[in-house]
Amino acid sequence: MLDLLIKSALHPESKKLIDVAIKDGLIVRIDENIQEDARQVIKANGKVVFPSFANMHTHISMSLLRGLGADMPLMDWLSKVIWVLEGEFVSPEFVRDGALIGIAEAILSGTTLFMDMYFFEEAVAEVAQRAGVRAGLGFGILDFPTKVASSPQEYLQRARNFVREFKNQELLFPVLCPHAVYTCSPETLKKSLELALEENVYIHTHVAETQSEVEASLEKFGKRPVEHLHSLGLLSDRTLMAHVVWTTEEERGIIKEKGAKVLHCPESNLKLASGIAPISDYVRRGVQVCLGTDGPASNDNLDMLEEMSLMVKLQKGANLDAKAMDARTALRIATEEGFKAVGIKAGKIEVGYEADLILLDVSAPHLQPLFDPVAQLVYSAKSSDIDTVVCKGRVLMEKRELKTIDPQEVNFVSKKWKDRIDAFLKHKILH
Amino acid sequence: MLDLLIKSALHPESKKLIDVAIKDGLIVRIDENIQEDARQVIKANGKVVFPSFANMHTHISMSLLRGLGADMPLMDWLSKVIWVLEGEFVSPEFVRDGALIGIAEAILSGTTLFMDMYFFEEAVAEVAQRAGVRAGLGFGILDFPTKVASSPQEYLQRARNFVREFKNQELLFPVLCPHAVYTCSPETLKKSLELALEENVYIHTHVAETQSEVEASLEKFGKRPVEHLHSLGLLSDRTLMAHVVWTTEEERGIIKEKGAKVLHCPESNLKLASGIAPISDYVRRGVQVCLGTDGPASNDNLDMLEEMSLMVKLQKGANLDAKAMDARTALRIATEEGFKAVGIKAGKIEVGYEADLILLDVSAPHLQPLFDPVAQLVYSAKSSDIDTVVCKGRVLMEKRELKTIDPQEVNFVSKKWKDRIDAFLKHKILH
Repeated sequence: MLDLLIKSALHPESKKLIDVAIKDGLIVRIDENIQEDARQVIKANGKVVFPSFANMHTHISMSLLRGLGADMPLMDWLSKVIWVLEGEFVSPEFVRDGALIGIAEAILSGTTLFMDMYFFEEAVAEVAQRAGVRAGLGFGILDFPTKVASSPQEYLQRARNFVREFKNQELLFPVLCPHAVYTCSPETLKKSLELALEENVYIHTHVAETQSEVEASLEKFGKRPVEHLHSLGLLSDRTLMAHVVWTTEEERGIIKEKGAKVLHCPESNLKLASGIAPISDYVRRGVQVCLGTDGPASNDNLDMLEEMSLMVKLQKGANLDAKAMDARTALRIATEEGFKAVGIKAGKIEVGYEADLILLDVSAPHLQPLFDPVAQLVYSAKSSDIDTVVCKGRVLMEKRELKTIDPQEVNFVSKKWKDRIDAFLKHKILH
Repeated sequence: MLDLLIKSALHPESKKLIDVAIKDGLIVRIDENIQEDARQVIKANGKVVFPSFANMHTHISMSLLRGLGADMPLMDWLSKVIWVLEGEFVSPEFVRDGALIGIAEAILSGTTLFMDMYFFEEAVAEVAQRAGVRAGLGFGILDFPTKVASSPQEYLQRARNFVREFKNQELLFPVLCPHAVYTCSPETLKKSLELALEENVYIHTHVAETQSEVEASLEKFGKRPVEHLHSLGLLSDRTLMAHVVWTTEEERGIIKEKGAKVLHCPESNLKLASGIAPISDYVRRGVQVCLGTDGPASNDNLDMLEEMSLMVKLQKGANLDAKAMDARTALRIATEEGFKAVGIKAGKIEVGYEADLILLDVSAPHLQPLFDPVAQLVYSAKSSDIDTVVCKGRVLMEKRELKTIDPQEVNFVSKKWKDRIDAFLKHKILH
């Protein structure tokens, strides 16, 4: 007995109608006409089957701060808006409610894995578990005190407890997130590495996002961020580096040699004026590149389809080379490379892969006529065309209806936080 | 008696609920509670009212060639794919059917004016008229023979007839489109200008799209494209120049002085590896900038919301300056500046303006919480959030349902052309 059978989906490359059989969360058979019994059957009616997206860098609960301080330069935005509001509001309740909105959006736009980094990640875990999505729960580590801890030692102790609590779960896994070279001392970074090795978890951090970060690192450590991390032993295939916009030839060689992963966030890098990362060069060198949206307050959404489309066009345009990247590479980066970076065999519609997939409705005028489903997914489609989302064999959305999240609850928590934040902002302006 | 009354729409700046009264295609009153009788009432229920988009550069019928030859460099794409298929297929039927798909897509994504440039524009006129959208019907003029004409003289004669036939219509207006400096001789360009002056119509042309166009112009004429057009007298406030990616300081000064308009197409410029146009610099100098998608085969869609979002982020990122452009400027460029460039008083929700507007549904998770409707339209929204589209007071879409186009007809023509083009491509590959 199959768990799920998807009938008559269009294969994007062969353009043939196929059935996809799923059992125990895996794709167990793909064929033209499968007649096995299944607990649940989805009639795809020619919708195109693609792997779902892996959003490899986000701060999902920042959905609650979306749209605030738009158009401000990065440091003003952080110091005058984001940090003020986070200082006032961040709590397990804030994180849980923000994650609920963000995860609803992520599922609606075809994402089944997100790598998060924030405070109170146990609250993200609670929502992700309930929603049935995969999440890398990134425990943030900083040198300065926040509501989570007051010293690096305390962060590390709490991080160890967190990692032990969330290990060995089906869809969730703990990740260590020393924030960046400009917020963590060499000592804190080394201690984070030791903990990651002891507990066998990934390290997820921000690296070389802006030119000023590079300058500050040179001034303070005599080394650029990637060199600095390398000298501390932090670079390895368990290291996930967000952004990596500003690197030298030599640093790119080091990244390749050590097998560290680049988590590219093109929309955030443009919007915050960080720059355009040399992604096609990384890919050419064999550096593993994954894709992320960054937090919804600096993007300002969690739409991986939009992000993928921007990535490939931006590489062509910024390099003045139409061959800098193609649609198929973009799709692989947005799907398979992400899952692979954290050891999940998903991101391909093939037998033996995890059943993380989407069905794309191609009936809208902007997808007509349909000559090349892959190119048209990347260049023409919108996330609203995603009809169905499956994560590890479980249907999270069908006919655009969320199956594991109640939209009423999303509306309720949105309104609650809008009222609270509006009242605070009004008070701030009046006093 | 009002023609249309929109009740309880959220004003994006005041964040108050307003009613919008429309008569004879104009916004005649905006108030908190309007109790006048109206032929048609739309209950907006808190949806946000924005001006609709003006897509100022497209080749809309190329929707039929969407997705073909994706990822090829510009000249290969044109010579090996597009021109071969156009040579085989372009006809009044092709243009009409392609326009039907494209106009359906345009309405679904909130556009009420498009500036077209192609062959057999009378077929575009037929569909635009029926659909109730505004269109600048651009009669293409070239030096080389096509199905339309065999000599520049014949193009110009036919253009004159076309202009006279389509003048003085309510929503449609004829435009002269000498294609570019590399496809029209100085003689053809000057004759086009004479005709435009005689008939009092706009000139719409491609200018300085690629570096190689600039090099070829220097070689052939000893002048860069903008200088060359200027020396021929072509630059004035009736001149609409698409792309304008590669310009010197001096050329920018000339554009400003002559009042010619720049039609920016950021997605096409990235995808075809043309480059990143210096838009924030143009805006700073007071050059009038409008926004377009370019043809759906080089974008690959007609989504102005996506285009607007890319424009502003790209200017920030490419200039490493978060203040290079802001959301409100982006919205103005995508709406008011476009209409204004062709003498239409639309693009603002104000009394006395044409009633070209959209209602944005802000209930989806990716728009929650809603703190700044303008910033969130630009950075977070998707065209699928557009619920209602009104053009000159006529409702073209409501609750995402097209009111003037039958989706069945869109599907029918899509399938017809897909079959024909597929058969041709198969034959070409086999022989």
